Amino acid sequence: MDDTPNPTSCLLVIGNEVLSGRTQDVNIKFLATRLGEIGMPLREVRIIPDVPETIIGTVNEVRARFDHVFTTGGIGPTHDDITSECVATALGVPWVKHQEAWARLERHYRPGEFNPARQRMATMPEGAVLIDNPISIAPGYSIGNVHVMAGVPRIMQAMFEALAPRLPGGKPVIARAVHAAGLPEGRIAEELGAIQARFPTVDIGSYPYYRASGNGVAIVAKGTDPALAAAAIDSVTELMARLGATPVEGEPPV
Amino acid sequence: MDDTPNPTSCLLVIGNEVLSGRTQDVNIKFLATRLGEIGMPLREVRIIPDVPETIIGTVNEVRARFDHVFTTGGIGPTHDDITSECVATALGVPWVKHQEAWARLERHYRPGEFNPARQRMATMPEGAVLIDNPISIAPGYSIGNVHVMAGVPRIMQAMFEALAPRLPGGKPVIARAVHAAGLPEGRIAEELGAIQARFPTVDIGSYPYYRASGNGVAIVAKGTDPALAAAAIDSVTELMARLGATPVEGEPPV
Repeated sequence: MDDTPNPTSCLLVIGNEVLSGRTQDVNIKFLATRLGEIGMPLREVRIIPDVPETIIGTVNEVRARFDHVFTTGGIGPTHDDITSECVATALGVPWVKHQEAWARLERHYRPGEFNPARQRMATMPEGAVLIDNPISIAPGYSIGNVHVMAGVPRIMQAMFEALAPRLPGGKPVIARAVHAAGLPEGRIAEELGAIQARFPTVDIGSYPYYRASGNGVAIVAKGTDPALAAAAIDSVTELMARLGATPVEGEPPV
Repeated sequence: MDDTPNPTSCLLVIGNEVLSGRTQDVNIKFLATRLGEIGMPLREVRIIPDVPETIIGTVNEVRARFDHVFTTGGIGPTHDDITSECVATALGVPWVKHQEAWARLERHYRPGEFNPARQRMATMPEGAVLIDNPISIAPGYSIGNVHVMAGVPRIMQAMFEALAPRLPGGKPVIARAVHAAGLPEGRIAEELGAIQARFPTVDIGSYPYYRASGNGVAIVAKGTDPALAAAAIDSVTELMARLGATPVEGEPPV
């Protein structure tokens, strides 16, 4: 088996609208899922405001700490869209007209409508490699290990799928789950810890649930070795049955 | 007018389940909204895994940088619930039995069921001040400027409301909004920037929306001075009308 560890990733969600509670973020879950699937698991998320020093400082901190950094938000035409200038400053490169992005936007708008505000969307850190935007044209881009995407979920998702083929992923992270109604996690906690100790390369999580249909606990095992994740869940299933509960494969119904 | 700046806050979401995409976080939006309402705006969120060094390092970094730190997740009875030990280590205090928390849990469980795993939920950094949990008993706690809460949304929300009266809040953050269908943000961007410049203490955000009912742009003005937020939105409303759009007060319908 290939023992190369998977590359790590970090997501920066840039925008006051998430920090103020105006917007329910849905980009984190999408990217967390997709990055796990392509073997580049998400190790940290930071949600930061539209403040230049914060963006610049955070980009520099996380691009040094993680193999890949994804950003969402702040690449539109308005005064609060400052991600792009900040990434250029963080990387110490000029923020310049990108010929191809400029050409795409010029073709897209009617004559006279490609105004200075919109021209900012074609201004990028020197050396940026475009990420296609099939929804609303204005592209994202990669520069070094930083991948800059839009914040609108539909656009971000399309950009990520355009980018994914050129990302150096690793082994997919596989999840297996089992759940049992009426079983409090406090009853399985001690033996579950022992199972985790037996499977150190599998990440075992315990998640109590509270549903209209009833309460219980779901145990999820994640890892890059499907056989080990399955074996861990088999052990949990046995444990649940031994305690008199009825284990059911998979996550509990919503 | 009182010119004391509002205290700042930071949220740490602790748990692999959000980073793996298993769980759609809803705690961020709740806390962002409530913290704005009590005048302690959220300035940063970090989502971090159940890794001791990461939790300890992050707690120490953000408790020095922000006035208040809130954590969600990792205070249950299972092996992956390690927030509490990590907070004790970060603060350099022993992790010890909390008499009152212990008494509450001992009363709650049937004889013999308050097992070692559950006893961990009554083990806290020395000096912890309890945060009541009216839903499932096991309390959260404050220690210094760090407030440790559960991850299950219903429990976290109840804990926050129990905690809120003793938080030293500031001036509530007020939001005013206006939206216009059919207006691309690229058309108002330049003049919107000029309005932002005229209202430097108001935080003006521009949010394009894409709905089944149609596309458009919503402009939100936030600040602690209601008159200034309203004046900024009045200027935006005028601008939208001047450009031939039909401005409508408030956020666009969902």
